[in-house]
Amino acid sequence: MTETALAPTFQIDPTAQDALFRGARSVRAWSDEPVPEETVEAVYDLVRWGPTALNTSPLRLLQVRTPEARERLAAHMGEGNRQRVLDAPLALVLAADTDFHENLGELMPHMPGAAALFADDLATRERLSRDNAHLQAGYLLVGLRAAGLDIGPMSGMDASGIDVDLLAGTSWRSIMVVLVGRPAADNQAHPRAARLDFERAARAV
Amino acid sequence: MTETALAPTFQIDPTAQDALFRGARSVRAWSDEPVPEETVEAVYDLVRWGPTALNTSPLRLLQVRTPEARERLAAHMGEGNRQRVLDAPLALVLAADTDFHENLGELMPHMPGAAALFADDLATRERLSRDNAHLQAGYLLVGLRAAGLDIGPMSGMDASGIDVDLLAGTSWRSIMVVLVGRPAADNQAHPRAARLDFERAARAV
Repeated sequence: MTETALAPTFQIDPTAQDALFRGARSVRAWSDEPVPEETVEAVYDLVRWGPTALNTSPLRLLQVRTPEARERLAAHMGEGNRQRVLDAPLALVLAADTDFHENLGELMPHMPGAAALFADDLATRERLSRDNAHLQAGYLLVGLRAAGLDIGPMSGMDASGIDVDLLAGTSWRSIMVVLVGRPAADNQAHPRAARLDFERAARAV
Repeated sequence: MTETALAPTFQIDPTAQDALFRGARSVRAWSDEPVPEETVEAVYDLVRWGPTALNTSPLRLLQVRTPEARERLAAHMGEGNRQRVLDAPLALVLAADTDFHENLGELMPHMPGAAALFADDLATRERLSRDNAHLQAGYLLVGLRAAGLDIGPMSGMDASGIDVDLLAGTSWRSIMVVLVGRPAADNQAHPRAARLDFERAARAV
């Protein structure tokens, strides 16, 4: 190997690295401090610039704020997640828009006809929107933590039930629920679970 | 609304926000500066701490480094992406490990029997690994940029061809190819494409 080292000169300092990844933990008990819409918008306005396939940008956010909507959402969650959905200051339903192609004239102006490629192919739209909404969910979770918020992402839910109830009449399909706020003073995280070492998660050819 | 503002006190300064999201652009022409394995490992070691469903952590990385492997990968890419795969200092095949459940005894020690839930259900493993590998891909792309690297993510490829050729004999399924390095001096990005405003991507109930 004659490679010279391209040192990882991180653009974010170790404190921020900890806040975004190493030190961050999913929260299980929440304080009452509210999370206003302006904060969610500030995070969205940052992370929306992350790349997606063909700039499809299919991630959509349903902010579940009213007690009535919170009860409806909780009813579709796995049993262990219901009370947390009721307790957290904000619950976000992350969704994939299966009609993302309707925006491609605006999002992909240098590829005229991109929308037409998908118009009659719902199966491809479902796969592409689900894949890229998860990719954007990665950006969003990092962005929420970057904004000083704690998160509790959950996929233990009846996604079809959420779609029929809270997303009725839309082309949005739920992929995840993310609780957002600040931890309660008595929040207790699980012991930090392990992750795979690089040697087991990566190979080279 | 009686909510008091929880101001978005970003843990990363505006310069880092630009480097990670607002100012970052997908690269089309690369310099020769190599990207050593140590750099990829440093990024992986940071972003592996991001949350996934049941801590499944299914993202896997194939670093395509040799000229012979690069030629094989290029042959499976869409025509517009082939030369870029040959030119970039490093191509990463991001993959979802459909046998992620074999690690759950270690990754989910407080949920004994998690592995057994998935042992006979390949369809669920395929969906869960694909979803969560895309989520982790979001963390990884942010992490690569945080390490001062430029990226060129691409999904215009014959994923099955990559799996049969470069991932033969493994439980890894390719989801994306990401070129990594530094831009050439004459790199020209497309004009910045638009993103949806918050009002069109988010609702509240």
